Amino acid sequence: MTKEKPIEKIKELGASISKQILKGDNPAIDVPIRALSNVFFDKKSKTLQLGESSSKRSFFNIAHAKKFLQTVEVAKIEKDLLDSGKHASLRDVFYMAKRTIPNTSVNLVDMQQESDEIIQDLELISGLSREQLHVNANKMGSVAGNVVIEDRGDTIDWGKLGSGGWSIPSNVEEIKFKKVNANFVLYMEKAAIFERLLEDKFHEKQKGIILSSQGQTTRGIRRLLQRLYEEFELPIYVLADLDPWGAYIYSVIKYGSINLAFFSKKLTIPSVKYLGITCNDVERYNLKKNLIKLKDTDIKRMQQIADYEWFKDNKEWQNEFKIMKKWGAKAEIQALSARGISFITDKYLPEKLKNKDFLE
Amino acid sequence: MTKEKPIEKIKELGASISKQILKGDNPAIDVPIRALSNVFFDKKSKTLQLGESSSKRSFFNIAHAKKFLQTVEVAKIEKDLLDSGKHASLRDVFYMAKRTIPNTSVNLVDMQQESDEIIQDLELISGLSREQLHVNANKMGSVAGNVVIEDRGDTIDWGKLGSGGWSIPSNVEEIKFKKVNANFVLYMEKAAIFERLLEDKFHEKQKGIILSSQGQTTRGIRRLLQRLYEEFELPIYVLADLDPWGAYIYSVIKYGSINLAFFSKKLTIPSVKYLGITCNDVERYNLKKNLIKLKDTDIKRMQQIADYEWFKDNKEWQNEFKIMKKWGAKAEIQALSARGISFITDKYLPEKLKNKDFLE
Repeated sequence: MTKEKPIEKIKELGASISKQILKGDNPAIDVPIRALSNVFFDKKSKTLQLGESSSKRSFFNIAHAKKFLQTVEVAKIEKDLLDSGKHASLRDVFYMAKRTIPNTSVNLVDMQQESDEIIQDLELISGLSREQLHVNANKMGSVAGNVVIEDRGDTIDWGKLGSGGWSIPSNVEEIKFKKVNANFVLYMEKAAIFERLLEDKFHEKQKGIILSSQGQTTRGIRRLLQRLYEEFELPIYVLADLDPWGAYIYSVIKYGSINLAFFSKKLTIPSVKYLGITCNDVERYNLKKNLIKLKDTDIKRMQQIADYEWFKDNKEWQNEFKIMKKWGAKAEIQALSARGISFITDKYLPEKLKNKDFLE
Repeated sequence: MTKEKPIEKIKELGASISKQILKGDNPAIDVPIRALSNVFFDKKSKTLQLGESSSKRSFFNIAHAKKFLQTVEVAKIEKDLLDSGKHASLRDVFYMAKRTIPNTSVNLVDMQQESDEIIQDLELISGLSREQLHVNANKMGSVAGNVVIEDRGDTIDWGKLGSGGWSIPSNVEEIKFKKVNANFVLYMEKAAIFERLLEDKFHEKQKGIILSSQGQTTRGIRRLLQRLYEEFELPIYVLADLDPWGAYIYSVIKYGSINLAFFSKKLTIPSVKYLGITCNDVERYNLKKNLIKLKDTDIKRMQQIADYEWFKDNKEWQNEFKIMKKWGAKAEIQALSARGISFITDKYLPEKLKNKDFLE
């Protein structure tokens, strides 16, 4: 993470290109390669990382010319956004870049995928996240807890937002933490569990920050978790279904994802812990009757995940996969409701936290 | 909408069953039929409505016995929820109902669909929404504007929540409006547009409440829109993509949906207006180069929607469908970004609102 102002990084790119042009050179941009061939699992940092390979994208090269133009155009759009202080979505950038090159019938971009890829390239070229370059990802999720933030001039108390919580924006780079009074952060994949814990005032009783998405863990959520971890040294726990999808949600937060390997440093939290559900929980809390049968897609996905390099040597998780396979079944967080509507708040979570009963 | 306390309605059901048993009768419950055969489009109220047909569900009838038991069990779960003041999700209720009937190998419910259906039956039997019976739907969406609410003892100002907004809970029945200072409500299907308008302070400049989901318009969102319309007579406008999916999102808010026809009265807003995007907008704002080609699924879905009884006689919408078909293309809201990042805030929306340029 660079401390330089984002606008300076974009200007550097522009200056480098003009310099080459003025010298009469064929202008070119160095772009690190984002393909799987250049992604590796770094056993030391335990995160997915990008290798050292890069390629030259030059203007006077038929195979590169369009991508070169796209890169310059999207960089210009990002510069305009930074200048105006406004933020755009990926879709906005696509429409802003989508125009016909004068005196041709060629569009600069035809599909959003093209501008998305350039936005990722510019993250690598600048060393800045697209959020810092004012391009936002999806907005999703809610948060509650004893935390006061300042955002766009508003002072917001995450603990005083009723049954809803604060709606997490797509871009959390600019929020300022004024007070953080919590012992941990609990992230859950299901909004229904968030509502359960909020209604039961779990966050007050256990002094925790609760945070949920609905399905996918967006970049905004990952960055918010990471900021709470890095700036306040709060432990981060993940509460997910015991199934391959839950395991993957956890692993993306911990190790990173193949797609975003180039941003592992900014988006992963190697110390994150998986709180549950585990096979052990199923035994201890008598949930065997509340399992759900594994589908073929579950079994296939589980095998894939078990084979990932970052799971391969993880004995605890391999054991979970083995037992699930033996049972032919998975366990949802909400299975705990079979023990009582607030069993999760009053018994399950306090015990897990007290006993530090986590998976790595 | 009944003014009676929800718990009384559940007790009434219980009392009616015990009375039948004590009299030595075969206990039975009258359940209105929710099938398509009993759904009609009421031209007067312009909403989808449920007909008068109902069926008897009795205990001493092999075809009914299980459903009878399920109904009593789920009613008991709802009574427990009401007694404790707690709320559960559909999934929670499924797990709470999922148990083996003593001395048999029969589960009371095996799939969530079974308990979901009973929950819908109980809405009809009681005349109360499942939210009133403390069973919540999905949580989704964000809201901002010059509105102060009270919720679970917290006072929340929707205008002072930074770049995020208030995260809309799944159940909005119990929130109290303390101050509503707005001329209209603008609902949009895309969270990215919500972020655009929030950053541009559209809600302050135009004195509007802005509200978005991400995709699906949940029951919580529909009820929130309806409460703002009924309790404050605010006009509700829908901002969606010009495609069959956008048209359907609009029509569900206006006319109701087949699945929830039995709750049209509580969930529909016949006076809602469609603000855009329209084919006319595409011409006026020079967006023709920014259209997206219709896929086969789009064309098929458009034909289905055009044939719905509630669209069939709507000349304006039939015209939109015709032009889209002629173009072979659809227009997304974000196409407006091609005219400039804040074109939507500074020009498009103010003009549409000023000229009352809406579709019915």
